[in-house]
Amino acid sequence: MNSPNIKHALPITRARDFAAWYQAVISEADLAEESGVRGSMIIRPWGYGIWERIQTLMDARIKAAGVENCYFPLFIPLSFFEKEAAHVDGFAKEMAVVTHHRLKSIDGKLAPDPDSKLEEPLVVRPTSETVIGQAMARWVQSWRDLPLLTNQWANVVRWEMRTRMFLRTSEFLWQEGHTAHANEADARAETMRALEMYRDFSETALAMPVIAGEKPENERFPGAVATYSIEAMMQDGKALQAGTSHYLGTGFAEAAGIKYQDQGGQQALCHTTSWGVSTRMIGGVIMVHGDDDGLRCPPMIAPYQVVIVPMLRDNDEDGPIIAYCEELAKALSEVDVFREPLRVLFDRKPIKAAPKRWSWVKKGAPIIVEVGGRDVAGGNVSVLRRDRLYNEAGKLAATIMSRGDFIAEASVMLNDFQVALHHEASERLAANIRRDVTDKAALAAAFDGEKPGWVEVEWAKPSGPALEAVVDWLKSHKLTLRNVPLDAAAASGTCVFTGEKATERVLVGRSY
Amino acid sequence: MNSPNIKHALPITRARDFAAWYQAVISEADLAEESGVRGSMIIRPWGYGIWERIQTLMDARIKAAGVENCYFPLFIPLSFFEKEAAHVDGFAKEMAVVTHHRLKSIDGKLAPDPDSKLEEPLVVRPTSETVIGQAMARWVQSWRDLPLLTNQWANVVRWEMRTRMFLRTSEFLWQEGHTAHANEADARAETMRALEMYRDFSETALAMPVIAGEKPENERFPGAVATYSIEAMMQDGKALQAGTSHYLGTGFAEAAGIKYQDQGGQQALCHTTSWGVSTRMIGGVIMVHGDDDGLRCPPMIAPYQVVIVPMLRDNDEDGPIIAYCEELAKALSEVDVFREPLRVLFDRKPIKAAPKRWSWVKKGAPIIVEVGGRDVAGGNVSVLRRDRLYNEAGKLAATIMSRGDFIAEASVMLNDFQVALHHEASERLAANIRRDVTDKAALAAAFDGEKPGWVEVEWAKPSGPALEAVVDWLKSHKLTLRNVPLDAAAASGTCVFTGEKATERVLVGRSY
Repeated sequence: MNSPNIKHALPITRARDFAAWYQAVISEADLAEESGVRGSMIIRPWGYGIWERIQTLMDARIKAAGVENCYFPLFIPLSFFEKEAAHVDGFAKEMAVVTHHRLKSIDGKLAPDPDSKLEEPLVVRPTSETVIGQAMARWVQSWRDLPLLTNQWANVVRWEMRTRMFLRTSEFLWQEGHTAHANEADARAETMRALEMYRDFSETALAMPVIAGEKPENERFPGAVATYSIEAMMQDGKALQAGTSHYLGTGFAEAAGIKYQDQGGQQALCHTTSWGVSTRMIGGVIMVHGDDDGLRCPPMIAPYQVVIVPMLRDNDEDGPIIAYCEELAKALSEVDVFREPLRVLFDRKPIKAAPKRWSWVKKGAPIIVEVGGRDVAGGNVSVLRRDRLYNEAGKLAATIMSRGDFIAEASVMLNDFQVALHHEASERLAANIRRDVTDKAALAAAFDGEKPGWVEVEWAKPSGPALEAVVDWLKSHKLTLRNVPLDAAAASGTCVFTGEKATERVLVGRSY
Repeated sequence: MNSPNIKHALPITRARDFAAWYQAVISEADLAEESGVRGSMIIRPWGYGIWERIQTLMDARIKAAGVENCYFPLFIPLSFFEKEAAHVDGFAKEMAVVTHHRLKSIDGKLAPDPDSKLEEPLVVRPTSETVIGQAMARWVQSWRDLPLLTNQWANVVRWEMRTRMFLRTSEFLWQEGHTAHANEADARAETMRALEMYRDFSETALAMPVIAGEKPENERFPGAVATYSIEAMMQDGKALQAGTSHYLGTGFAEAAGIKYQDQGGQQALCHTTSWGVSTRMIGGVIMVHGDDDGLRCPPMIAPYQVVIVPMLRDNDEDGPIIAYCEELAKALSEVDVFREPLRVLFDRKPIKAAPKRWSWVKKGAPIIVEVGGRDVAGGNVSVLRRDRLYNEAGKLAATIMSRGDFIAEASVMLNDFQVALHHEASERLAANIRRDVTDKAALAAAFDGEKPGWVEVEWAKPSGPALEAVVDWLKSHKLTLRNVPLDAAAASGTCVFTGEKATERVLVGRSY
């Protein structure tokens, strides 16, 4: 509800300036902040708590697929990169390079000690295909060792010139799955399994609808044979690539020597895959679910699902209120939601109830429960659902419930909340993909207004220079190819770019 | 039991060469391996799984203490280090320095692009006091913001010349807690809380008895006012520092400007602490609990507590065996151990049962269950407890149990196992600390034999040059001061080093 007479919690609205609103949510919800280190952010407790929830739920899915977690070195020797030419070309322009291993006071200032110069510079991993490939070559000997399914949770660094918190930072946190298989079919199946895992995770855990599909050739991971992505639509209509899965063919295996003896005794190259999602997902959650009062955090990934705010007055009534809240927190922690114990916080920080309530509204805690002396006397609680913050009159829509009813209904309310967020975002996604554009002029025109959404067009899947021409034209209109949706209808007409007979349908949109 | 007629699983025994045995366990149990990157190891699934268990259990304790997880940048600008002189002196000699942000092909070889030289070099964090201090200065304004309790799980890098897997690697994984308080008493209380958390965690989760105490001045963290440690005794008698907690006074707060307005409206400096444990703990677990057949993994931190090995013959009987094992795994996964679901693996890898069994013996899975056709027919399982591997005749001590009995008793068996490991290590620790040494000659003589253990001596707690002289003398005998145990008896005699009146008792030992 965006009633015009509501004074919202953020200093800026989505409608007024979406980019500034995004920064305001991150700041006001204590998600992250600039660190003073170029391109690197500090992830604050509420933001990191969301990442921990994403890790927990994603890791369970990764493990359930038989993938084993490992940890590989942060530093990759330069020579590892030289083996895979296409890969280097893709990454060589943006890597942090360690050249010295000691500091020294020189003329009263700390500086790298010239005597500590490394013989071979070390690259801070931008991704770990090269170093994991070397390990796989040792671990894989026979068909019995396949498939080899590994994953790591790690920090990676890509030197970015223009950074935006969560969306594009020089250092970010992610998981990277790396697998080796006996043949193309198995490797392609794993690529699609990971993609489907990401799609389902986004829809279920993040309540964020996405389109899964194959990226066009120009958007492939450096060295990959095929790259797939999930694409989410932000509230400004732009696309966010929220996860990728790559079929790497035998190129990386050849560079690293990942070979196996097959059941007939012959040596064969492995087919490898890699797939990853990162802290970028949090940026997506903000831009899909946030409103003019801050974040609305999907309950499945909310660090706390229910926050209890006591209304204390520094007098004799405080004791009973605190005892009542403690009991309530205990009772709620024994409730199960989404097959896990409900996560409840009794917030006892020494600040007043009103600013405390608003801080949780901005953070997007799904349910905020306020407890004052009158609630204690009546055995009640005052319940505020973050997805139904205002009533029709534009006032805060707190509901008085009996303590027992609330405890009994909390799980259902949180389920409803999760479903409602997904429903709202799904409707918006469906309403903002056009499929009726058949020529370039109409395509360009479709993006003239504000919040233009995406356009799914038919195309002839051009390659090489023909594709470059398409990409250049799109770029001149600030557009990009997103992906070829797996579930798109068949093409029946002509390519919107070249007029040739179309072979498939591709999504076009502005992007982050 | 080390019956001489037993052919053990490892190629080398502890008695023959403890250091080589340690490497053999790491290799044969698939815990970790050299990466080809100087000083950095690859942590393999079984080793990483142990680390995940340590993380899970430690993180719950950290959160229960009200500490919030955050994430801070990997890179720290050089200027951040210049602010804290004592800290820099301690670390300046061993840090990885990033000086360029791009690679370029120069004369056909990849090299740092000279045009990408950073104006200010970035240090890869050896620890995060400096960068977290800057953030704390922003976050703390008023007494209401205190205590500020933060923690991060991260990788850190200290350039090490001599590395040993898990014990001393250039890159390692750890958690680092950083807290700010209104006064010395609160900060010291937090320092001791963290120390006690580590002590209890080691004893309980790792089954590794430790001595908690204050490090002498020469072993303090750079810039700290007081450093405390937990020290564990390895099977060769050497000491391993397995965790530290530091009271930092106001030095770091002054350097970073961490100030608050107190309740009287006055500005005051915060008192800060930091505390950490790392992947080094895994090295301790190996050297405390390992035997000549590999690791014996404490059930609380074992990635799998029960491993089911099917005895297949590639014939018609295999189907029923597999079905029986699957049901068994399902039933076991519904059992609770240590208030968590039992972690069971049905190992279906296509390798023969005997080498598979031995691979799990070497990894130290607490209970290995073998299932063959005869077991299925009789409704039985063959149970091998890793802590009672051989019978008196030196044969594998597998016990036939009914399936139902085993499921009913699994939790108790795992509890027993955890307690037995702790008991064995505690007896060894107690038996190998001497307290009867009163002069330097006797102290040196006490370390003449093999596996000398530790000696607790009385001393006058010398400082400055007097302490240096003691440290130098100890060093000449390859000895170090470990810590002043919190629960040591009072001193009543004279300092073993100086002959002065003693003030306290300090542990002396060889160390890792």
